[in-house]
Formats: sequence, structure tokens, C-alpha cells
Amino acid sequence: MIELAAETLDLLKGVSTATITGILLAKKGMRTRWIAGVRPVSPARCSFVGPAFTLRYVPIREDLDSKAGLHDPDNPMRHAIETIAAGSVFVLDMRGELGCGALGDILVSRLIARGVVGVVADGAMRDVGPLSEMALPVFCAGAAAPPSGNSLLAMDVQRPIGCGGVLVYPGDIVVGDSDGVVVIPRHLADEVAQAGHEKEQIEAWIKQRVQKGAVIPGNYPPNAAVEAAYRQWVQEGRPEPKGE
Amino acid sequence: MIELAAETLDLLKGVSTATITGILLAKKGMRTRWIAGVRPVSPARCSFVGPAFTLRYVPIREDLDSKAGLHDPDNPMRHAIETIAAGSVFVLDMRGELGCGALGDILVSRLIARGVVGVVADGAMRDVGPLSEMALPVFCAGAAAPPSGNSLLAMDVQRPIGCGGVLVYPGDIVVGDSDGVVVIPRHLADEVAQAGHEKEQIEAWIKQRVQKGAVIPGNYPPNAAVEAAYRQWVQEGRPEPKGE
Amino acid sequence: MIELAAETLDLLKGVSTATITGILLAKKGMRTRWIAGVRPVSPARCSFVGPAFTLRYVPIREDLDSKAGLHDPDNPMRHAIETIAAGSVFVLDMRGELGCGALGDILVSRLIARGVVGVVADGAMRDVGPLSEMALPVFCAGAAAPPSGNSLLAMDVQRPIGCGGVLVYPGDIVVGDSDGVVVIPRHLADEVAQAGHEKEQIEAWIKQRVQKGAVIPGNYPPNAAVEAAYRQWVQEGRPEPKGE
Amino acid sequence: MIELAAETLDLLKGVSTATITGILLAKKGMRTRWIAGVRPVSPARCSFVGPAFTLRYVPIREDLDSKAGLHDPDNPMRHAIETIAAGSVFVLDMRGELGCGALGDILVSRLIARGVVGVVADGAMRDVGPLSEMALPVFCAGAAAPPSGNSLLAMDVQRPIGCGGVLVYPGDIVVGDSDGVVVIPRHLADEVAQAGHEKEQIEAWIKQRVQKGAVIPGNYPPNAAVEAAYRQWVQEGRPEPKGE
Amino acid sequence: MIELAAETLDLLKGVSTATITGILLAKKGMRTRWIAGVRPVSPARCSFVGPAFTLRYVPIREDLDSKAGLHDPDNPMRHAIETIAAGSVFVLDMRGELGCGALGDILVSRLIARGVVGVVADGAMRDVGPLSEMALPVFCAGAAAPPSGNSLLAMDVQRPIGCGGVLVYPGDIVVGDSDGVVVIPRHLADEVAQAGHEKEQIEAWIKQRVQKGAVIPGNYPPNAAVEAAYRQWVQEGRPEPKGE
Amino acid sequence: MIELAAETLDLLKGVSTATITGILLAKKGMRTRWIAGVRPVSPARCSFVGPAFTLRYVPIREDLDSKAGLHDPDNPMRHAIETIAAGSVFVLDMRGELGCGALGDILVSRLIARGVVGVVADGAMRDVGPLSEMALPVFCAGAAAPPSGNSLLAMDVQRPIGCGGVLVYPGDIVVGDSDGVVVIPRHLADEVAQAGHEKEQIEAWIKQRVQKGAVIPGNYPPNAAVEAAYRQWVQEGRPEPKGE
Repeated sequence: MIELAAETLDLLKGVSTATITGILLAKKGMRTRWIAGVRPVSPARCSFVGPAFTLRYVPIREDLDSKAGLHDPDNPMRHAIETIAAGSVFVLDMRGELGCGALGDILVSRLIARGVVGVVADGAMRDVGPLSEMALPVFCAGAAAPPSGNSLLAMDVQRPIGCGGVLVYPGDIVVGDSDGVVVIPRHLADEVAQAGHEKEQIEAWIKQRVQKGAVIPGNYPPNAAVEAAYRQWVQEGRPEPKGE
Repeated sequence: MIELAAETLDLLKGVSTATITGILLAKKGMRTRWIAGVRPVSPARCSFVGPAFTLRYVPIREDLDSKAGLHDPDNPMRHAIETIAAGSVFVLDMRGELGCGALGDILVSRLIARGVVGVVADGAMRDVGPLSEMALPVFCAGAAAPPSGNSLLAMDVQRPIGCGGVLVYPGDIVVGDSDGVVVIPRHLADEVAQAGHEKEQIEAWIKQRVQKGAVIPGNYPPNAAVEAAYRQWVQEGRPEPKGE
Repeated sequence: MIELAAETLDLLKGVSTATITGILLAKKGMRTRWIAGVRPVSPARCSFVGPAFTLRYVPIREDLDSKAGLHDPDNPMRHAIETIAAGSVFVLDMRGELGCGALGDILVSRLIARGVVGVVADGAMRDVGPLSEMALPVFCAGAAAPPSGNSLLAMDVQRPIGCGGVLVYPGDIVVGDSDGVVVIPRHLADEVAQAGHEKEQIEAWIKQRVQKGAVIPGNYPPNAAVEAAYRQWVQEGRPEPKGE
Repeated sequence: MIELAAETLDLLKGVSTATITGILLAKKGMRTRWIAGVRPVSPARCSFVGPAFTLRYVPIREDLDSKAGLHDPDNPMRHAIETIAAGSVFVLDMRGELGCGALGDILVSRLIARGVVGVVADGAMRDVGPLSEMALPVFCAGAAAPPSGNSLLAMDVQRPIGCGGVLVYPGDIVVGDSDGVVVIPRHLADEVAQAGHEKEQIEAWIKQRVQKGAVIPGNYPPNAAVEAAYRQWVQEGRPEPKGE
Repeated sequence: MIELAAETLDLLKGVSTATITGILLAKKGMRTRWIAGVRPVSPARCSFVGPAFTLRYVPIREDLDSKAGLHDPDNPMRHAIETIAAGSVFVLDMRGELGCGALGDILVSRLIARGVVGVVADGAMRDVGPLSEMALPVFCAGAAAPPSGNSLLAMDVQRPIGCGGVLVYPGDIVVGDSDGVVVIPRHLADEVAQAGHEKEQIEAWIKQRVQKGAVIPGNYPPNAAVEAAYRQWVQEGRPEPKGE
Repeated sequence: MIELAAETLDLLKGVSTATITGILLAKKGMRTRWIAGVRPVSPARCSFVGPAFTLRYVPIREDLDSKAGLHDPDNPMRHAIETIAAGSVFVLDMRGELGCGALGDILVSRLIARGVVGVVADGAMRDVGPLSEMALPVFCAGAAAPPSGNSLLAMDVQRPIGCGGVLVYPGDIVVGDSDGVVVIPRHLADEVAQAGHEKEQIEAWIKQRVQKGAVIPGNYPPNAAVEAAYRQWVQEGRPEPKGE
């Protein structure tokens, strides 16, 4: 797996998904990196950055006793939960199924114990009341009490999956915030982190100008003159910005 | 209507919908008891237990003056609201219609006065701002200001209905919490309440073990050894649980 | 554009969308004035009244460099933002597209600086975390970080549009509250405001009666006797209302 | 049930659903009489006129053995099939369910034997291969082999239902052709049949004019002059029509 | 892989999917074996029976040059097409994607050359005009000209997949006819084939009775007396059946 | 409007939409040129090529009497039908509305008289029985008898529109066949026509090779050796192709 620059994950913690998706479009022509249809269980806990660890579900068949399998350490769900590395984001391909909840408070407790930093699923979760008070950011497509065996069967661990319309390879860098979740191809993460860090800074400066009355054309996106003004302001030690 | 055991409703107040749906699947092979697509108007007020009282809507026809009918005590909506028994859950088959709100603050005020304990509708509600501050838990599929006469006509009281994909007979036991709403067939309510009460207790004990570092396989779902450990722990007077 | 009565906008600030849609149905037979599928970014900030200023989007074409165009004052998005009148509601026809966010915190900052009182879009917004803390009520169909150029192109300013299934002419009066958003045809705004103001008053009186135990039939909607009682109560100087 | 004029059903056999829906909109302001989402099993066999006979389905519950019930003459499905009057259109409220087929070749054979003239269902049918070669026009929302017990339970016979978004009362006049299915409220059937018969005649005359080069404005819909020309042409014994 | 009885595939050629799904429900309680949302490209060519050979797609990423990979024999799509066994049914998990066509006339020509007997995909096909005149039954969810690289990437060969909501293991027996497609778990295929063969025969006899006027109750499903009459008729050498 | 090369439209008549979309993706990175969700009214009549003439609809408002407006030559629908140039494809932005039919047999008769070569609408048509026997290829999203005034109002002629998710400028070249409809940006039409013409020829040659047993890898897409073999075959006067 491609090695990331040491500062990449830290830099990304300060970059919004709006900025990341903007860079992926403008610099790489990528329009397919945004996970559709997921929301945080707790709006107060929605920021995370980490590499993807993937689990793929398929539909059930009534005669496959998923419960018995849960005692088996080779069961894909159990294997995933007990082997996922600390710092990972657990990404579940649930095929958009909303009739069952993949994870409840006991499994999320275990993920927290294992050091997982985020969960993203294009299906539902259960026990969302307790989950909303736990420390782990969880993005999903809904709440549903029935256990996953109601409609889904865990099948593959660490294969490339689709989640919310996005191709996710194990190790891709997954970033979440209040807008939702973006998946950065691993080989682009360093570049996106650097560009994102810079863009966040100039946009904060632009936002202040706009709040003081600057017009949008020229300022956002910044034209050459505004970019030069920004660079001079940085050189001058970032004094309080002025309006237009 | 089948008589319930005296403690059933009280026991169910301590059982989550996640636990109930798990029991209905594991013990009865039932996968069709979860009402799809409803959320509480107020997340802070979503727990209830009670027997279903049903109302069925059909689409409108423009020349049927629903307003005049509202003065008529035989109007199904009026009849329902003025005959529903205290302790009931009012369940509305709105056919997934989101273009009108079935109940607003005046009708909900009346339901509260009549002792209703919950409302579940697979359509929208109106006045959701005021509703979110009223004492009655209301689950619905959205908010819509237009009156129900905009697209729906109340037709039948206390007939079996579909709501969110679930067959609901009058008298079925309806349970809501932060995940959503499950409908227990009335003849199974006593059994589900007992089994649910026991499962909540062992799962609370398991959750504590997992939070202290226990692995999932073996513990959840518990194998025979873990179940024995739980029973011994109960016999010992429930001392503080240990990790794996 | 038709002149409104001086008090119309102020009166409408005290009228709920539930009341307005009820009047449009009962008095005008209008069932198509409710914007479907939009929710407030911040539930705490969802009330507004003002005339519509419209922007129409179309799908993208990959070779149209929308970014370059943003420096051009004739760009429809830029033109809209820099010409919208104070007091307006900015209404966006996004064709239900959820794969990009039309406005983020910088553009909304500019709209606030220009005196806009509300935003309504049948598509997504970006930067919804920051937006939820800004002063402007924003209704939309979701959150999405990707910039609008990911899937939409701004095309027309101040043409009649569709938004959430509703025909919106520039100048129509748009009203939002916790239920959502209704669009009053401009030529009906004065009449709806007057009727709505009166209906709010009698319904507040009815609601109190119902909370004290009055039955629904006869009281809501009020029959002639109840309406007479209300008028007498007004004449008597509005003493504390009695139950049925 | 309201008595129809003797010629009404025969007149309607010569009127298209396009003409009927046009009259219901123009003369009655009715926009809710068109059954959404149904197509004929056999495009070659899609024309019918008759009064509705209704059956309502609800979702299944796994422990209700629908099969045993099929021997019971009180079973709603059996009761419907064995009591439906010759000349009726069998209208099924399947709640849009596409996971099972309500009727197969044996039940349709029985409906033919009983003299039914059409079937309309907002759900699926099974055995659509054989059905497409049988004499009865069947409109439905899809094909699905699983028996109805897979997901639906027959509940009520001859109650008002919704079908494809339309309120259908038993006895309403249902008309099908290659466009689909319209439901005429029974009390309007005589009037619609008369108006439809006349409109078909003038539109046939207009169509010929347009095919010979007449412009649309003035001719369609016809202005007063064109209507006068039509009436004169009728008085003159309907000679070959001329172009514009 | 479980060995099938020698006659199983031949028997299944004479059993409809309606009969098979009925048996799977009645004898095995299985409600999840029907592939949702697929239709034959050519209604005249829709019958097939064979073991599943599976291919799994995931969403695209713009920088993965799928075209270059097509020359690589390890490319999953190429590998699938060049290794699929004669007699197989090619089943594609396209995740419901309708924006591209997985197979066109050249690839289908190759599948025919390799002896494939059916294709089932929960996504679209391209070149459906030519395909509709080719000898291979193809079931899909629509037509779309863009190549699969427009939105999908082939990922896995011969893994268990979901297709139209159904879990499909390689080797499961897939049966198609004019209703659509059912997937029989391989270990049940012999039993279903035998039971289906018998059920087809009695239902043909029942259908003739019903066409001659027999009522549904008692005859369909057959009660004990009717089943006995059928067995006697078989013993008597199957003379022409009589009405009720 | 950009002038097309003289042979472009004729060349495109021999190029499939599968080939065109493949070229737009491979050469221009365009994934957004395929109109989603439309099917031909008559599968036997679905091929056309021509420049787009656009009409935009918005939702209705009940008090706008669309009928009166139809006599007005400035009515957008009338203006469109009476000014559209011979050879054009009439493209309608109906916003996916399926509750009304935009065109019936009289208006289509007029379009034929005016020399229109195709119709594409992301909504429904009416009179589809008669339409299926008329000479004009019509692609739409369904059939619906109610007149357009049931839910839509014609608003703009010859503005850029969205149709089935595609941005269509007046003058873009629209091509239809049995797969559906693709929109070529006008400035790319000459290039796409030339490349498409060549690709059709080599793919016909490849298809014959595959039908004679050639494997897919190497042949499709052709590698350098196969392309060279094709060119030599052309130079040799196109003798009967050989297998692999």
C-alpha cells in the first residue's frame, strides 16, 4: 500500500470536504468521490480522517443461519471487527439496504475499543439512540432496529467495494464532516492534503472580506489581483483583513 | 381481542425495538414487522408502547368536500379521534403520501386530551414546530403544511391496514424508540415481552464486558460459556462485570 | 410587478404555512403551492417572508469551464448574487440534484450582506456546518460538499422556474417556517395575508378550548355556533377561554 | 348505486382516455383520475369499459397461512373472484408492490369465465406469458412470478380503494386503452360519455385538417370560427375535409 | 460444487418461474429468490435454465483506464467471458446502474460462441436492437448506449453477488421465462425440479377445469378431493377433463 | 450557430448511439450526454438524426388557464410547433413529469407536416396507440392520457434545457436508435461523425471475427496487430473475414 506523507492525515483534519471535493474536481476532473445519501448519527460528532477498511454485504438467503456463523472467527463481520487496524475508517457496502441495521451499540463499543475513527455505511444502523451518545462518528443512510440478518449477509473483507455510489479501495483516505463523506484515492492523498490546506487559508481570508462587504466576482474564486493581495497579506504577517 | 398478561406493556417499556425485532426474527422468522421510513418529530420524545388504533386513508377526489364532512361525527377522522381509547397508539395508513399533513397541533392536542400515547403515520404531519414541543411522541415520514384534504381522504376506522410496509391489526402492540417503530402481533406480545426483558439484561452485561475489552466472537451473541458466566453473575448478585 | 398592500409582508410573518396552504386550498382550489422535499439547514432558523428572486440551473457539460465564468459579471450565478434586492428570497431550480451543493458559506455570507431574507433550493447546499450557524434561513433538499460545477450549470436569472414541483414566478411571495415553504402567487398575497391573520387568531382560541377538553367536531373546523362564540369573545375583550 | 344512461358504456367504448381526461380537467377541474404506472400485459388487448369491482391488499405477516385460507369461500380473494358481476372491471389496490403477482393464468381463466371485462392493478401479475395470449385486457405495474402470498394479503372486497394514486369507488366507470386507465366517478359517467362522444368527432375532423396542412393555432383547440366550420360541415353531410 | 441429478435441468425447462417461486415459498419459506426489475431484451426469447457464473461490478473512478485493461486477460470482464463454461447463465451484479450498458453485440456474440445459455443483469445493456435478434436470452433492467466504463468497473469473477436483490452463489440454478428470473439454491435444485414437474401437470389439468367453468375454491389450490380426482384421472390414462 | 460539415448528418445516420457515446467518453471524457429514462413509442421507428429545437416546461398553477393561451400564437407551445425548422428534433424538458402527456396525435400530425424528424421528452406522451403508427420517431418516459395542462405549463422556446439529465443547447445534434438518445455538442458533431463512421466499420469486421470464434482479448477493443490486420483487409478489398 502506498506510503502517505507524515503530515497528510493531520493536514486533512483541517480541510473541509467541500474543499477536498473542489480540488478533486478542479485538479483531477473527478466527480465520483462523494458518498451519496449518508448523514451523521450525531451531528455533533461527524469529523474524521483515516484509511478505509472495507466490508461487503450481499442480500440474505433465509436458510443461511447467520447467527450460528457469528461465533465463527472466520465470519466476515467478526473477522473485520477483530482485525481492523486502529485509526481506520470502517466502510460498509450495504447496497443501500434500509431494512436492517448493520451495527448496534455493542459492535460500535468494540470498534471504539479497537481504535476505529469513523464508520460509513450506505445502509442503516440500529441502536441509534445510544450510538448518538458514543464517541465514534457514524455516517449512515438511516436507522433500523432489525438486525443485519434481517436482509443482509456479510461476505467479503478488504475487497474494493461500492458505497453510496463511490468506489472505495482498502486504504483510500476517507474524510467526513458536517456535509458528509469524501473518499480520496490513496495515491492522491498527499497532493490533496497540501492543496486543501492552502485553499482553506485563502478562503478564510476571502470569507472575511465578503463578510465586510466585498463583492463575489473577482474575490471568489479569487482572480490574480486578489490572490496577489492575499499573498502580500500573508507576507505582512496577516493583519486584520479589509473589505473590498 | 386477546387479553395481554398484566405486565406485558410495562416490560416492553424497557425493551428496545432492536431487541424486539431481533427476537421476532430469531424466534418467529418474522422479517416484516419494522415500519419503514418514519422518524420522530421530536428525537427527545420517541418512546411509547400501546395497542394500535387504525385509520385508513385513500387518495382524494376533488369534488368530495372533505371540509363539510368534518362536522359530521361519522366522518372517519372525527370518529377515530373521538373514540380512540386512552393508552392507544394511533396508526395511520397514509400510503406514503408526503404532500399533506394528516395531523396538526389542534388535533394532536385532542389526542393528548384523550390519553393517546403515540402516533405513527407513513405520511407527513403539519405544524411540526408546535408538535415538536408537545408531549405526544409522533413518528411520521415528513413535514407538510397542506391539510390532509390536499391529497388524502380518511376512509376506514379500525380495519387492518398497511403502514410503512407492515400489516397492522387493531390491537397489535406498537413500540417506538429512537430507532423507529415495530409492530408486535398481539398474540405474541406476552412472549416477546418476556424474552425481550431477559435479552436486555444479558446484553447490558455483554456491552459492559465489550467496553472493557472483550472480543466479539463468543461474547456477542453469547456462546454457552458466556451465557453460563452471565447466569452465575446473576446468581452472585450481579457484581461489577469483568472484561474478557 | 403587482404592488402589495403595505401590511401584507408583516401580516404574513404571523401566519403559518399550514394556515396559508389551508386558505389556498379552501378559497382558491390550489393544491400545487407547497415545495416538496426541502428542510431547513438550521431548524432554529426557518421563518422568513419575501418576494422570490429566481435562478435556474441545468445539468453540466464537462467541457464548459464553469470556473472561468465565475469571474464574468454576466455569469448567471454572479449576476443573481450581485443584483438580488434586499428583502428577497433566493429560489433555486436545481432539478432535485443532490450531487453538488449550490451555495457555501462564502456565497451565503454575500447574500446576508445583500439583505436576502431566505434561500430555497430543491437541491443540496455545501458547508452546511457553518451555514447552520449563520443568520440566513436556508431550505434545501440535502447536504453535499462537491461544488455546483460537479453537476449543475447556472443558466437563467429571474425567469419563472419550477422548485420542488412548484411554479415560482419572480415576485411571488415565499413563506417559510418549521413545516417548510409555500409560494403565494403575487396577486393573491394581500388576500391570503388578511385571511391568514384572521384564521390564526380563531385557531389559537380553538386550540386553547381543545386543550381544555373541547371535542373536535363542531370546534375544528368551527361551525356557525363556535364562530359566533369566538366573535362574541372578541367583542368581550378576549377573556380567558372556556372548554366545551 | 346510481343508474347509468342506457348508452353510456357503449358511447365510452368510442372515447379515448385522452379525451376523457381532457374533459374531466376542463369541465370538472379534476386532475386525479389517471391511474399512474400501469401498462397493458398485451398491447394488442387494452381497451375496455366497465364498472369497478374492488379488492384491497395489505402487506403479509409470515404466520398468516394464506394458502389454507384459499379454500375458505369467505377468503376475500376467493369471495371477490366468485361474486364479481359479469361486465365488471376488477381493480386491485396492491400498494405498488412489485414483489409478487396477484393473478396468474388459472385465476384469469376464472375471471374470463365470469365475464369480467378488464383487470387493473397497481402491482404485478404472474404467468404474463400465458396472460398475454388470453382474451382479458390486464393492466398492471410489472411481472413477478412469486405468488401473492409472498408479500400481500387480500383484505377487503368492494371498499373504496386507492389504485395508482386514484380513489376508486365500487361502481366507478373504468376505461382503458393504449395510453392506460382512467376512472370516471359514477355520477359523472353519463355527462362524460356524451361530451366525449362529441369531442371525438370534432377532433377526428381537426386531425384530418392538420394532416392536410392546417396550423395548430385556431384549429386545436378549435376557436369559434373553426367550431362553426365543423358544425356546417356536419350539416352539409360531412364531405371530405379541406386543409387550412 | 454439489452434483445435480441428471434430469434436473431438463425437468426445470418445463417448469415456470411462477411454479418454482410458489414451491420455494410453500416448502422452504423462501421469499427472496426473485430477481427484481429485470425484463427480457426480446420477449420472444426469454426461457433458459443453467448454473450461475457471476461477475461483480463496482462504481468507476475516472483515473482508472478501463480500456487499457481490456487487453489484459486478467481483466475480470475478459477473464469471465473467456472462462465461462458452456451451459452457464452469466449473472452480473451491476448495482442497479442504468447509465451504461454492460454488454453489446460483440460480447454477446462471444458468449454465444462459448455456449452460454442466458444473461441476467440488474443494470442496462447496449446495442439492444441487434441483441434482440440474437439467439441468447438476455434479461436486464434497461437499455443504455454508453459503454460500461461510463459508470462501472468489473471487479470480481465467481464471487457470491447480489443481483436484483437476490443473493446468487456461483452454481446456483437460474431459471428465466416470460415473468422474469428466479435463482434456486443449488442444494435445492433437484427437489424443486421434481416438485415443479408434478405441480405443472396438476395445474394444467386444473386450468382446463377452470376454463370449462369450475369454481376456484376447492380447485385452486386443490383440496384433497380434487387432488384425488386428479390422481384418478392420471390412473385412468388422462382422458379429456370435465368441468366442476 | 456553428456550421456543420456537409456530410455530418448523413454519416451519423450510420453510427449507433453505442458508438457515439463510446467516442464521447474515450476522446472527450464526456459521461453526461445520454438521455436517461426514455424509450421509443414504436420500437420499429426509433432512428433519427437532427439538430435540437428546445421547449421548456414548468409545473402548473391552477389559475393559469392554459387552454385560452393555446389560441395565442405567442404561446410557447404554439410558437414552438409553428416555428420549428424542418429536419429538427423537438426536445422537451418536462422535468420527468409522468402525470400528463405533452403531445398527442393532432400535434404530432402537425410536427410531421412541418418536417420534424424526431421527438424526445423526459415526460409522457398521450394517444400513444395512434402515435405508434405514425411516421415520426418519438422517445418519451411513459404514456399518460391527461393533457399537458394537467401538470405542466410550456414556458420557454429555444433556451438551453435539461432533458433526462442532459444539458441540451438548441442546435446540438441529437441521435436516436433502439438503445435510446444521445446529444452531441454541436461543435463536436463533425469530429464525432467521422470517428463514428470509421469505428462502425472496424467493429462490423471484428464482430464477424468473433462470430467465427475469435477471442475477445486483443480483438475487442482491437490491439495494434488487429488494427493492422483490419487495415490490410481494407487494402485487400475487404475479402470475407477469417476467425482468430
